[in-house]
Amino acid sequence: MKKIDVCLTPELLHLYNIENSIVVVVDIFRATSCMTTAFAYGVEGIIPVATVEECNAFREKGYLAAAERNGITPEGFDFDNSPFSYMTDKVKDTTICVTTTNGTLAITKAKTAVKVMVGSFLNLGALTRYLTEQQYDVLVLCAGWKGKPNLEDTLFAGALIERLQEDFMVDDDSATMALRLYQNGKSDLLSFVSNSSHVRRLQRLGIQKDIAYCLQHDIFDVLPVLRGNTLVNM
Amino acid sequence: MKKIDVCLTPELLHLYNIENSIVVVVDIFRATSCMTTAFAYGVEGIIPVATVEECNAFREKGYLAAAERNGITPEGFDFDNSPFSYMTDKVKDTTICVTTTNGTLAITKAKTAVKVMVGSFLNLGALTRYLTEQQYDVLVLCAGWKGKPNLEDTLFAGALIERLQEDFMVDDDSATMALRLYQNGKSDLLSFVSNSSHVRRLQRLGIQKDIAYCLQHDIFDVLPVLRGNTLVNM
Repeated sequence: MKKIDVCLTPELLHLYNIENSIVVVVDIFRATSCMTTAFAYGVEGIIPVATVEECNAFREKGYLAAAERNGITPEGFDFDNSPFSYMTDKVKDTTICVTTTNGTLAITKAKTAVKVMVGSFLNLGALTRYLTEQQYDVLVLCAGWKGKPNLEDTLFAGALIERLQEDFMVDDDSATMALRLYQNGKSDLLSFVSNSSHVRRLQRLGIQKDIAYCLQHDIFDVLPVLRGNTLVNM
Repeated sequence: MKKIDVCLTPELLHLYNIENSIVVVVDIFRATSCMTTAFAYGVEGIIPVATVEECNAFREKGYLAAAERNGITPEGFDFDNSPFSYMTDKVKDTTICVTTTNGTLAITKAKTAVKVMVGSFLNLGALTRYLTEQQYDVLVLCAGWKGKPNLEDTLFAGALIERLQEDFMVDDDSATMALRLYQNGKSDLLSFVSNSSHVRRLQRLGIQKDIAYCLQHDIFDVLPVLRGNTLVNM
């Protein structure tokens, strides 16, 4: 039987064997929710890069570019890290370069996997259908916050496990914990996450609307996957 | 206000500043439950060491010695890793050298803290009373399993947070998750942990009795603390 595991932070990724797994990277607030939204609005490609400098270099070559550090957008970029900033015609058929505090690093670290995909509550249903049909194990890689686990990414892992548990074996305690937390919180995720450290950080930044948006399930039928250095919609 | 955090595995300890914290190391199945039991039965000191070889060297010097690797006791040691093996008069006033797969490494890694203490459900009440009276932040360091988080140590962290939450700030998502999991599972911890990977490993080894024992709350009034290289009962 196929197996689904959860790696609660990229700091622990070296403990997992991902050569025969599809890795689903998740950074709910807000990198992977933004990416899912961008593809739903017609973006052709997203290039995740590790540093603001690299991102700037792409921007100078004419790409649209999005950067975020500690929840804030450095000056001169085309998008902030709000999913609403991608809901515009100007993204259609473009390739965007993106760097964020946690999410893009997680994508880069997972490159040796069979496939690296991007997950969010927004495309949970599409992911579920796709992963069910594949022959590979799945590892959900939570981007976390500066190396530490976080609540919202763990809850997403639990949501994906809940959907996949009939077809996948749940063997790992991190996966068991994620599933339990999601089942415990899913009836009111917004209030469940309102105690998370990151939500409190975001609320200080006035981004309540983003938080509620990113917790919506199954609204986009997109499957972002890494091809070479670029995420595309499969 | 004082703060309580949780580090879900020693692999993440470098992300926490422990210089002004009391670190409570926990390895429920079974190292820290054994240590708590040993002190309750009159052990004077426990020397945690990293390797079976070091442990053997102490044994050859005349110490009682306990070793465990992957849930199993290598030949020639005085105790296995069952708490029941410490319930004997022969431990009274002795100093025992101990090495285990996860627990002793966690203790060694925490040495720069203000104090390193040993926690288990068995001495939860004693720990709670002690920590409430101190002026320091608390970090619960879960020993986990070979670098990965595990369910039972996380549940202990949640239990300690539940007891301390009036006097300590819970700021960290790992702590929030641990608290939620404990609150979700505490009415029947034995069935809650029966899905954990380590419990399934232990059940294959025939140690159901140990599991039920280690989940009992507040039965020993002991406070193991590291002094130099030796744990003593405060």
